[in-house]
Amino acid sequence: MTHKTYWIVALLLVVSFAIGGLFLPSGATNNKVDYPEGYRAWTHVKSMVLQKGHPLYESFGGIHHVYANDKALQAMKAGKSYPDGAVLVFDLLEAKSENNAIVEGARKVVGVMQKDSKKFTATGGWGYEGFKGDTRERVVKNAQTDCHACHSSQKDNDYVFSTYRP
Amino acid sequence: MTHKTYWIVALLLVVSFAIGGLFLPSGATNNKVDYPEGYRAWTHVKSMVLQKGHPLYESFGGIHHVYANDKALQAMKAGKSYPDGAVLVFDLLEAKSENNAIVEGARKVVGVMQKDSKKFTATGGWGYEGFKGDTRERVVKNAQTDCHACHSSQKDNDYVFSTYRP
Repeated sequence: MTHKTYWIVALLLVVSFAIGGLFLPSGATNNKVDYPEGYRAWTHVKSMVLQKGHPLYESFGGIHHVYANDKALQAMKAGKSYPDGAVLVFDLLEAKSENNAIVEGARKVVGVMQKDSKKFTATGGWGYEGFKGDTRERVVKNAQTDCHACHSSQKDNDYVFSTYRP
Repeated sequence: MTHKTYWIVALLLVVSFAIGGLFLPSGATNNKVDYPEGYRAWTHVKSMVLQKGHPLYESFGGIHHVYANDKALQAMKAGKSYPDGAVLVFDLLEAKSENNAIVEGARKVVGVMQKDSKKFTATGGWGYEGFKGDTRERVVKNAQTDCHACHSSQKDNDYVFSTYRP
């Protein structure tokens, strides 16, 4: 390899990393809510069934379970504000009626609240997202109007509706 | 202390331990199901609401959540028979109707299945118990007729009705 070839290869490498840095997500620039990997093993906080006639039925009809990671659970139990890294999951399933019982059906959405006071300053330090069914497809268009507006009623509880059922 | 006093003290100690051994539960003689300490932090398997008209409504009406400890969870996910030490909890709460929603009410019973193939030979290796509400009061009178008779229909699934919802 000549000196000139060395320089071309080096230049190409530098350019590649620079372009990669622009398009790949990094901790410093990614303001998206993470998919809550492993949340099914987190602690189950509480559940509820929203039925026809409930004001939130169109969006959240079905049976939902709320799960908390350790950071969120400790804050919730202590009644304190949630630290960065706290994550709550709203796992919404279809509620099917079968023989005088309500049973769980297909997953409708995995709703997530992720606390990061630096990333999500406009929405009380909480990032909001929904992942459709069993996919990673994001469904929240505007976290402010789609989520935070309603959660703002719970400002005194750090914007969280759920309380831990012992 | 005289020699005689020594002997009296020693004798009293021996008698005390002997009497204690007869009345205190010990690992070797206790065939009762243990209260499932810490089960609320176990993995949530699935949930269901039994309503009026369901054949089991009288006994199990309400919303119930099934929780599994690690040994039970691994067996359930793998579709294998449950090892000794596996424990499943059936956490039954009142289901209250409020504004077109079903919400969780007071705890009715904490049902437990505990696998121990040596202790519970008469009921497929499973011990069954129910603890009333938030107490440690035992409510199962006859595990064979009150519990195992119905669970026997699930013999091919090691007597367990629930399957893990991913």
